[in-house]
Amino acid sequence: MEKSQNRVGRLISAGSADSNILYGSGFNAHDEFLYYEADGKQYIAVSVLELSRAMDEAHSHVIVRDRNDIIRKTGKRDILLGLPEYTGINEWIVPDSFPVAYADRMRNAGIIVRTMDGDFFPERAIKNEEEIEKIRHAMKTTENAMRMVQEMIRQAGVNCHNMLVRKDGELLTSEYVRSEVEAEFKRQGYTADRTIIAGGKQGAAPHCIGEGPLRAGEPIVCDIFPRSDRTGYWGDMTRTFCKGKPVNPKTERAFASVLKAAEKSLAMLKAGAVGADVHNCAARSMEADGFTAHKNADGIPCGFIHGLGHGVGLDIHEQPRLSPGNPNPLPAGAVVSVEPGLYDPEWGGIRLEDLVVIREDGYENLCTMEKELIV
Amino acid sequence: MEKSQNRVGRLISAGSADSNILYGSGFNAHDEFLYYEADGKQYIAVSVLELSRAMDEAHSHVIVRDRNDIIRKTGKRDILLGLPEYTGINEWIVPDSFPVAYADRMRNAGIIVRTMDGDFFPERAIKNEEEIEKIRHAMKTTENAMRMVQEMIRQAGVNCHNMLVRKDGELLTSEYVRSEVEAEFKRQGYTADRTIIAGGKQGAAPHCIGEGPLRAGEPIVCDIFPRSDRTGYWGDMTRTFCKGKPVNPKTERAFASVLKAAEKSLAMLKAGAVGADVHNCAARSMEADGFTAHKNADGIPCGFIHGLGHGVGLDIHEQPRLSPGNPNPLPAGAVVSVEPGLYDPEWGGIRLEDLVVIREDGYENLCTMEKELIV
Repeated sequence: MEKSQNRVGRLISAGSADSNILYGSGFNAHDEFLYYEADGKQYIAVSVLELSRAMDEAHSHVIVRDRNDIIRKTGKRDILLGLPEYTGINEWIVPDSFPVAYADRMRNAGIIVRTMDGDFFPERAIKNEEEIEKIRHAMKTTENAMRMVQEMIRQAGVNCHNMLVRKDGELLTSEYVRSEVEAEFKRQGYTADRTIIAGGKQGAAPHCIGEGPLRAGEPIVCDIFPRSDRTGYWGDMTRTFCKGKPVNPKTERAFASVLKAAEKSLAMLKAGAVGADVHNCAARSMEADGFTAHKNADGIPCGFIHGLGHGVGLDIHEQPRLSPGNPNPLPAGAVVSVEPGLYDPEWGGIRLEDLVVIREDGYENLCTMEKELIV
Repeated sequence: MEKSQNRVGRLISAGSADSNILYGSGFNAHDEFLYYEADGKQYIAVSVLELSRAMDEAHSHVIVRDRNDIIRKTGKRDILLGLPEYTGINEWIVPDSFPVAYADRMRNAGIIVRTMDGDFFPERAIKNEEEIEKIRHAMKTTENAMRMVQEMIRQAGVNCHNMLVRKDGELLTSEYVRSEVEAEFKRQGYTADRTIIAGGKQGAAPHCIGEGPLRAGEPIVCDIFPRSDRTGYWGDMTRTFCKGKPVNPKTERAFASVLKAAEKSLAMLKAGAVGADVHNCAARSMEADGFTAHKNADGIPCGFIHGLGHGVGLDIHEQPRLSPGNPNPLPAGAVVSVEPGLYDPEWGGIRLEDLVVIREDGYENLCTMEKELIV
């Protein structure tokens, strides 16, 4: 084929841990393979070991190639150097995450490699109904797990040290709850990792996953985010539970404030609402309740110290954001988390997170579970 | 600080899904952070949300920085552009996988960014005893799971269609075995995904994970490879089971040949043995038994169609390889899989995989489980 300056291809080389290659190809494989677009068509090039599975499982519009064919036809053992010759295309757009070593090898061979200004598949921010159905399934599974956690806390006893105790007499620990939740996800064909079950002070660090015995009277932040082994789509949901009446009265005030912020910001959601505005609505609501962001005497950040929400799809954190940094209107079909929270080592953390679909005239909440602190 | 042409830093920007940043830092975090080496010291720069956890969990020799401090001190919001100013180092070595978009941003600002010829941490190929202990733990957990699979097959009944049946009357399927194994791993603090439980013809495709009812008289390839949620180290092990006598007599001949190839290649292992030689030993042994690599009438590759083994550590596939492409002697302390296999859609697949530590005078097998086909 003749090389042409005008033809530009698009290229990803990754395993399906990379969400872009999974989105583009529909092919779920641990091992690295090539996805490329040339002249308006989509291709993947896979090893002979994966060939038949790729033909069965990839998106129906994706053409499957044996990577060895490309190597044989071009005589280039490095398929990244062979592909331009094979396709006759010398200029390739790659994702931001494309390995620099690959780019350098191609560039050293005179091939133009460049990233885009923005996402490789900006259309990922807008989910079609098939994708939404996959996320809906993930959220149904997530909600079942959340109810399982709620039930474990509800059914626990309390010992003389205020620690929660299982029916078998063992302590109810963060580790135990996490492993039971994550085990149940595997039964459902999902993988969850670093599930947050953080009680008391631990809940004041938004990314602390929690360890040790859970206690009555302290808020327990439960943030559950599994990924489907089959589809690759994530669920994401947070509730905060307290076994019995909270010891520190600020806990209930914080919970009420977070709940109000969630309701107010959810009420703003529809296509055209601006990401930053929705975040600011939640932030101002909690400030008005007396919960301003600040550092405590130990220098620990307290208050509402993270963004209100993020897109969820084949990545757990993707576009669009509900944060001060997003001045853009939300599109219909975006799937975003809405997760106001308040944190203070004095009493712990409260976070309430739903996952919603932005619709033309409002939003569809993929969480149906109530938001109640005391169990 | 003065810039100096002679000072070269090393830099990774990734979440701990990237095995290099986990190896260098010891810090296990979903979200992206910076690892860098400057003037012989190791640092990480993390968000304020991760600061206290990073101080607790990172390797003790790693110095933890608040990424906002770097941004504040340099006035550069893009920390990749701020870091050179902050450290006074203008030349950075990055891993092959470093995102090209990051490299381009740095290069456009006049910063030298280059990859190494070879691995970023070549020392990863040689495990210290602490790492081996982590892999030993992973293998113990893996072996328990393998015995669980063996027991599920042993205890299954067989219906009139030759399908395996559980005690509760349901069919014993690949999906059921996989989900039970993966659920048990989560209980043990491990994550397994795409666990291979592939019966009959499905086992002839080495990467097919298997689906549907398992049958008596057919080999079932069980390849189990979990990763520790805590340490990040992997286990990897394969056994092939058959419920009762195999229907096709070639199955038992293939099993005997694979077993012999495993024993012969294992016997070669010690520091100094050449990766390619060990592979070739296994390949020739199976060829001598009449199992030559070929394509069948449908063009499907049959015989021993993959490398004999690979290093295992923080990646499931890492250095060194036991394959024709590795002309190098194995170092003491390498941890490698030894996994001869034979594949043919006529009767299915057989693979037997142990994980071993290369020692000066031989090897230590981290698998103690017997290799027996018929259960």
